[in-house]
Amino acid sequence: MYTPPYFKIQSQSAILDFIRQNSFGMLISPLGEKPEITHIPFIVSESAGPGMSEPTNHDFRSFQPAQATEKATENGKPSESDHTDEKQIQLLFHVAAANPNPQPGPAMAIFQGPHAYISPSWYEESNAVPTWNYIAIHVRGELERINDHDMMQRLMDSTVSEFEQGSSPWSIDWSNTYMNRMLDGVRCFRLNVQSLEGKAKLSQNHSVQRQKKVIARLESGSEMDREIARLMKAELEKKSESMD
Amino acid sequence: MYTPPYFKIQSQSAILDFIRQNSFGMLISPLGEKPEITHIPFIVSESAGPGMSEPTNHDFRSFQPAQATEKATENGKPSESDHTDEKQIQLLFHVAAANPNPQPGPAMAIFQGPHAYISPSWYEESNAVPTWNYIAIHVRGELERINDHDMMQRLMDSTVSEFEQGSSPWSIDWSNTYMNRMLDGVRCFRLNVQSLEGKAKLSQNHSVQRQKKVIARLESGSEMDREIARLMKAELEKKSESMD
Repeated sequence: MYTPPYFKIQSQSAILDFIRQNSFGMLISPLGEKPEITHIPFIVSESAGPGMSEPTNHDFRSFQPAQATEKATENGKPSESDHTDEKQIQLLFHVAAANPNPQPGPAMAIFQGPHAYISPSWYEESNAVPTWNYIAIHVRGELERINDHDMMQRLMDSTVSEFEQGSSPWSIDWSNTYMNRMLDGVRCFRLNVQSLEGKAKLSQNHSVQRQKKVIARLESGSEMDREIARLMKAELEKKSESMD
Repeated sequence: MYTPPYFKIQSQSAILDFIRQNSFGMLISPLGEKPEITHIPFIVSESAGPGMSEPTNHDFRSFQPAQATEKATENGKPSESDHTDEKQIQLLFHVAAANPNPQPGPAMAIFQGPHAYISPSWYEESNAVPTWNYIAIHVRGELERINDHDMMQRLMDSTVSEFEQGSSPWSIDWSNTYMNRMLDGVRCFRLNVQSLEGKAKLSQNHSVQRQKKVIARLESGSEMDREIARLMKAELEKKSESMD
């Protein structure tokens, strides 16, 4: 992704937050001349070192594999959860068992967010051209199959609790035979993340005056336009704070 | 893309309409172990046979290359514009000249549309699992650079007129030196389409009763939810018409 410095998302946690908020992405696997694309929701897991999962939301606590924790205790090593740079980030998902496409090996996950056409007429200035504002995240890593029955159950639980809304969210009743049979109908995967790349193209290369005019126009548009306006405002506030 | 028959978009014109309505997509080029993804708006061109462009909107009339038309006349061949199956479909776009990524050769373009999480609690029935409804289009083809100055100008004109809205749409004034210099700042491409694949995952594998319950829930949701509801309704109407 061609990303001039002023469009680059610098913060890893900002990138992960964006994925959590725009979790319906796409996987490219295999990488190669005949790539296959699978459209699926992903969930983010951050773990401190290989195999040692640390929860990133209420449900990911359950992702901590007992064996890895025991090993760390045996060796008497302290938890590395405070060392952000040593975290192993994983993207988790499942597909229908009948889907032949995702295969273990190198893979990419892509996330698009809101986007909007920007008309130069909004600037009320001459010598300007149209553009498109958007956010996109590119993730590269190694795709691995999850076969462990308990891990698969926990992945399904986490996926449901991530997306269910309201005061009485639906959850999986594993005492139900139907739900257990369902597990045979899916394949579960983790993408062990090797690189995260984020681009927020939000008119940062234009004057503050132009940015404000664009925000004003987008605020009277669609939900997606208003979301781009909100993100542009946040960028402007960040900038004015760093100038204080 | 894993597409069970009931999710497959059968009509090529429906796929092209979807691309026109969701034109901000992504290009994978090069295909290979280190694929690069470029997020850009595309415009659709349909031509009757190689090189003979036929307009798909008001501006694409200008995309008809004079030479190809003359050739057809010389050979005394009739226009093939009525033979839908012989149309050459192209996706056109431009990127910043500084962007090193899109390269001539095999490439893919991907379009996502609206999407929505579907809770099994909405069905008011047991033995059901959550799912995600969405539309996605995969295009495979051969990417070619457009270097011709007039063609580049016409591609830029068409892009602007495709996305400008309102009663006084902005347009490019090519008598302005600034606008002509701008052409040096872009690279233009056409993706000569070899295959179009469309998936509309809209609960068609559920009972009509369940579909209606999902539609009702989505109709009180976000703009994207309501768009999925609208598409689900259209599918249901198509189905009931075919049963009449």
